[in-house]
Amino acid sequence: MRIDLNADLGEGFGAWKLGDDDALLEIVTSANVACGFHAGDPLTIRRVCEAAVARGVTIGAQVSYRDLAGFGRREMDVPAEELRAEVLYQLAAVDGIARAVGGRVAYVKPHGALYNRVVWDPVQARAVADAVADYGPLPVLTVPGSVLQGMGIPTVTEYFADRAYTPEGTLVSRREPGSVLHDPVEVAARAIQMARDGVVTAVDGSRVEVQARSICVHGDTPGAVRLARAVHDSLVGVGVTVEAFA
Amino acid sequence: MRIDLNADLGEGFGAWKLGDDDALLEIVTSANVACGFHAGDPLTIRRVCEAAVARGVTIGAQVSYRDLAGFGRREMDVPAEELRAEVLYQLAAVDGIARAVGGRVAYVKPHGALYNRVVWDPVQARAVADAVADYGPLPVLTVPGSVLQGMGIPTVTEYFADRAYTPEGTLVSRREPGSVLHDPVEVAARAIQMARDGVVTAVDGSRVEVQARSICVHGDTPGAVRLARAVHDSLVGVGVTVEAFA
Amino acid sequence: MRIDLNADLGEGFGAWKLGDDDALLEIVTSANVACGFHAGDPLTIRRVCEAAVARGVTIGAQVSYRDLAGFGRREMDVPAEELRAEVLYQLAAVDGIARAVGGRVAYVKPHGALYNRVVWDPVQARAVADAVADYGPLPVLTVPGSVLQGMGIPTVTEYFADRAYTPEGTLVSRREPGSVLHDPVEVAARAIQMARDGVVTAVDGSRVEVQARSICVHGDTPGAVRLARAVHDSLVGVGVTVEAFA
Amino acid sequence: MRIDLNADLGEGFGAWKLGDDDALLEIVTSANVACGFHAGDPLTIRRVCEAAVARGVTIGAQVSYRDLAGFGRREMDVPAEELRAEVLYQLAAVDGIARAVGGRVAYVKPHGALYNRVVWDPVQARAVADAVADYGPLPVLTVPGSVLQGMGIPTVTEYFADRAYTPEGTLVSRREPGSVLHDPVEVAARAIQMARDGVVTAVDGSRVEVQARSICVHGDTPGAVRLARAVHDSLVGVGVTVEAFA
Repeated sequence: MRIDLNADLGEGFGAWKLGDDDALLEIVTSANVACGFHAGDPLTIRRVCEAAVARGVTIGAQVSYRDLAGFGRREMDVPAEELRAEVLYQLAAVDGIARAVGGRVAYVKPHGALYNRVVWDPVQARAVADAVADYGPLPVLTVPGSVLQGMGIPTVTEYFADRAYTPEGTLVSRREPGSVLHDPVEVAARAIQMARDGVVTAVDGSRVEVQARSICVHGDTPGAVRLARAVHDSLVGVGVTVEAFA
Repeated sequence: MRIDLNADLGEGFGAWKLGDDDALLEIVTSANVACGFHAGDPLTIRRVCEAAVARGVTIGAQVSYRDLAGFGRREMDVPAEELRAEVLYQLAAVDGIARAVGGRVAYVKPHGALYNRVVWDPVQARAVADAVADYGPLPVLTVPGSVLQGMGIPTVTEYFADRAYTPEGTLVSRREPGSVLHDPVEVAARAIQMARDGVVTAVDGSRVEVQARSICVHGDTPGAVRLARAVHDSLVGVGVTVEAFA
Repeated sequence: MRIDLNADLGEGFGAWKLGDDDALLEIVTSANVACGFHAGDPLTIRRVCEAAVARGVTIGAQVSYRDLAGFGRREMDVPAEELRAEVLYQLAAVDGIARAVGGRVAYVKPHGALYNRVVWDPVQARAVADAVADYGPLPVLTVPGSVLQGMGIPTVTEYFADRAYTPEGTLVSRREPGSVLHDPVEVAARAIQMARDGVVTAVDGSRVEVQARSICVHGDTPGAVRLARAVHDSLVGVGVTVEAFA
Repeated sequence: MRIDLNADLGEGFGAWKLGDDDALLEIVTSANVACGFHAGDPLTIRRVCEAAVARGVTIGAQVSYRDLAGFGRREMDVPAEELRAEVLYQLAAVDGIARAVGGRVAYVKPHGALYNRVVWDPVQARAVADAVADYGPLPVLTVPGSVLQGMGIPTVTEYFADRAYTPEGTLVSRREPGSVLHDPVEVAARAIQMARDGVVTAVDGSRVEVQARSICVHGDTPGAVRLARAVHDSLVGVGVTVEAFA
């Protein structure tokens, strides 16, 4: 059994910092680097890429809507050809910086509202898929059942160890109480359950199958580092190989 | 005798357009494509790159300070490592888009206030040179005598056919009356004088030596297309080969 | 019979211009001044306010989503309290500039995607209404039947003389062919029909009642000035008083 | 003896926070609220204004260059009439929000690079002074000897208790080692020395006269709250009345 741990990194902007990139880079195997549209000025991108390369962490481009004020969390009706060009722009920019410091972008992860949108909206999903194909067919992280699957680009499914799931296997909305889990023991147990048994316990107590090659640990929640560490060490403890997928 | 004609293109942003890109692409041999920091949203970049590729016009990255509101014309004290990362980001983003449409970025041209600054400021010039070296040593357009020369990256000198020159061979500031020339006959004559004889007549009537491999024609001035056409046709008429340098 | 003519003005940004503000200010009675979020840098705002004051044109604040790249035309899921603060910020900023040049903001007009959204979405409509109430209860321009009506702020209904209408009295989407009318004679005739008879001929030929105190003429379409002039002169010609509502 | 304590507040943007506004509002008497150009989205502005009003802290508008990526710390050559309009826009926007929550902007403090520039540059200083005069002549915080003095608007001088001073009475540049003081005991002692005796000990040990009605405590340095508390309590302890100037 092999599983990847990914986290959102480089999500500061200028004078503003978010999360503890250095600590997370000691734990995760894949770094979703913010590309400048929801967070991530060029120098921040460079530094997080340098740090990822130094630690052997795989770099991904965390592409987003153009929305610094909303941190990419507000759904936007971006026309498809604009979105395709925006995603390509971000992907190329971060890959250029990654290559300058000895790395490269090895996968793509849409961020925030764009991530959620491309799960169900074939128009925006197609725009993202086309942008990725434009650049070179990198794998894209998404949830099982996403419409991104079957669009001619490789996809890799992921699991959110710190989020509550519905009986249908989808995430409980962040607006619902209890949607985000904070207890490291519980989160680690769910990671093990997913990695080893391929199931998650939904909010109604039912067991739902999930197949994921990567587990996302959020970097911007309080206690993020402790959670990520708990997930990592628990997985290793039960014999799971924690390893990048790309 | 061979000379390149370059112009700033793709300088719209979203709903806003500037200049007549299509008409200029019929005339120039090198397109300085705005990279998104002073102008140029990703879709505009893609379209101008497609149009350049279709016409066989060489693509350059017109990198700038981050200043949409000031169109990159306001000098900014950007720390060197930030500037280096910003230039690399822009260069990589536009090259990624250019490659997706069958082209590539073949040179770099700093824009506006950054262009003027790197002529004399070794700190910002070094930042730009380092960014270019980070990406792959593309030639950079600059004026004769620029401190960018001798920084380990190739440079190509250019001449401004529609600008008045001082007896020292530098540009008369845009704030001075008469600094920008609008008469196509005069501008074309100055282009020929430079291309054939390697001299320019300064504002005091003296003749100054200039050696340039490229002539810049501005795309955003009124009558830009007519000026560019006059320069191009006059050069061809006197037997100069108008050809990209890169 | 009295009718107001309003147009979107000040929709440039920095080096970019859009529409012919000076020509439109000779025709319209109300100027919807862009507030900086979809267009309109502070100096542009100041100049259009000065020009409006000089011509006795009433000033309104054309508030928008924060979306320069999309010109405010992309629907955004902005949380209500953020939207309320953003609208208040824009309204206050433009009113401050208007007052500095001898005018004042006398009404509010949401722009683009926000305009369309507050017609049907009670959450975003409430946010806009609250922002307007926060500042002082200025009238807000909207379409008949908008959910903005009945939210405790004054509303003024408007009619789009250059847009096709459905039999239900709503606008045909811009994405449909024929949704925007360009013939000055037809547009002027529709303005007269609305102003005098209170009806519009829908796309299926049926006649729909519309009651509007203001007619919007778009400033950014080709031929905008000619259209506006035709509407104005035709209305005056049939004895309608063209006069600001605020 | 009466002295004001001011601090920069509301310097987050969207998802990003900076400093501990609530803790500082318990200590300072004047809150320099970021206006959206270097920091401060509208909702953040509203919240910090509400919190200031609730605690009886005076609100000031901390106007800046338009530079989110550089946090307003990069000097910019903004033409005077653009800068005047930008300052007026920011001032009006924050005052509108302050009034909506029961307060008002009572003074102006330029931020970062603009603060430093208007001390010596008569062109930008005049632009700021004109903007303030446009809105209503609010007092502007500046250093003794600033060219802002004598421009027809009221000025209030301030002292930086946590910064090293030259023998000429100017600040030692942030780029010099030792320019920023971190020891609460030392900073508090310097505040008392300034408030009671009107002198500061310069880096060469000489004593320089300083007359200031306000002391600035920075909100974004580590230990900011502890420093501010030390300054406040020490001043009160020696009988100085800590009180807003406006």
